[in-house]
Amino acid sequence: MRFCLECGAGEVRRRIPDGDTHTRDVCDACGYVHYVNPKIIAGSIPVWEGRILMCKRAIEPRRGFWTLPAGFLELGETMSEGARREALEEANARVEIGDLYALYSVPHISQIYALFSGSLLDVDFSPGRESSQVVLYREEDIPWGEIAFPAIRKTLELYFEDRRRGRFRTHAGDIIRESGKAHEPIYRIRSI
Amino acid sequence: MRFCLECGAGEVRRRIPDGDTHTRDVCDACGYVHYVNPKIIAGSIPVWEGRILMCKRAIEPRRGFWTLPAGFLELGETMSEGARREALEEANARVEIGDLYALYSVPHISQIYALFSGSLLDVDFSPGRESSQVVLYREEDIPWGEIAFPAIRKTLELYFEDRRRGRFRTHAGDIIRESGKAHEPIYRIRSI
Repeated sequence: MRFCLECGAGEVRRRIPDGDTHTRDVCDACGYVHYVNPKIIAGSIPVWEGRILMCKRAIEPRRGFWTLPAGFLELGETMSEGARREALEEANARVEIGDLYALYSVPHISQIYALFSGSLLDVDFSPGRESSQVVLYREEDIPWGEIAFPAIRKTLELYFEDRRRGRFRTHAGDIIRESGKAHEPIYRIRSI
Repeated sequence: MRFCLECGAGEVRRRIPDGDTHTRDVCDACGYVHYVNPKIIAGSIPVWEGRILMCKRAIEPRRGFWTLPAGFLELGETMSEGARREALEEANARVEIGDLYALYSVPHISQIYALFSGSLLDVDFSPGRESSQVVLYREEDIPWGEIAFPAIRKTLELYFEDRRRGRFRTHAGDIIRESGKAHEPIYRIRSI
């Protein structure tokens, strides 16, 4: 925040407000405290006859890489509603949202991924505005070298492991960025 | 947003930005779009010899009502780190955070509750700044008539049910406000 969104003053300073424990943008003119918190990405694993619906990203970040339909949860939405909407927006796909499948914290970008199991209701899908391609992939055809985000890769790996074992359960964990190199990140994944 | 936090102009309007699907605060002067998304509450069920650590709220909302240690997730934190910090801040309690226990969407206030199982590491706890009392409750002593939030009540009910059955699993669902009366809300709880 450069200007106070409440009073318009330019006297915004980063400091710990009285009685708080964290540094915030605080307006010295009117006292307004600007809280910024992590965001939730809601999405699904849409399945049709054992194949998984994936989207090739038409937008940054990670344009040209593959992901599951998922995006920022909006005000007033439940996580399942967000997951259903994202499948419709990104893949024009109607998905029945099932159980919570994976919940991952990605603290270096302050994001939480909530991915649900899903059933694709028909195969009349097509790329939405944020996708350049939408494909139903068999496990052996998943473009593992071109997955957009580590939380999506981990979720897919867990899904196929669980499917081989014949037992699906809810997974939770953290995806911690270990390497400082922007072009070659290494992640440590903790399961909890 | 009344003033643009990027350029300070007072020409902020609620509209759907080009290519977006949702209404946002948009600055007509510089084009800045102000995204606001749901917030995550991270917390735990701290257990000591079968008893549960609960906090009586010293602050609004729901001052004087009882809750589990939980609060807004901060930037750069994992959900377990947030749950651990909240137990320390609200109850001066050291808690080892375990599995994800319950994940609830509360869409009418745009909040997501993520509650983890927890083990209290010692009984040297005391009220933090936001609590007036901190108590280890046996199931039969839980102040059911004075629970602060429906997600906390539901989580406690599930916990004791699971404990009686001798089997804990991760729960997820939605808490939907059905009644418009502020003083007498009725909630519909969907499990997913």
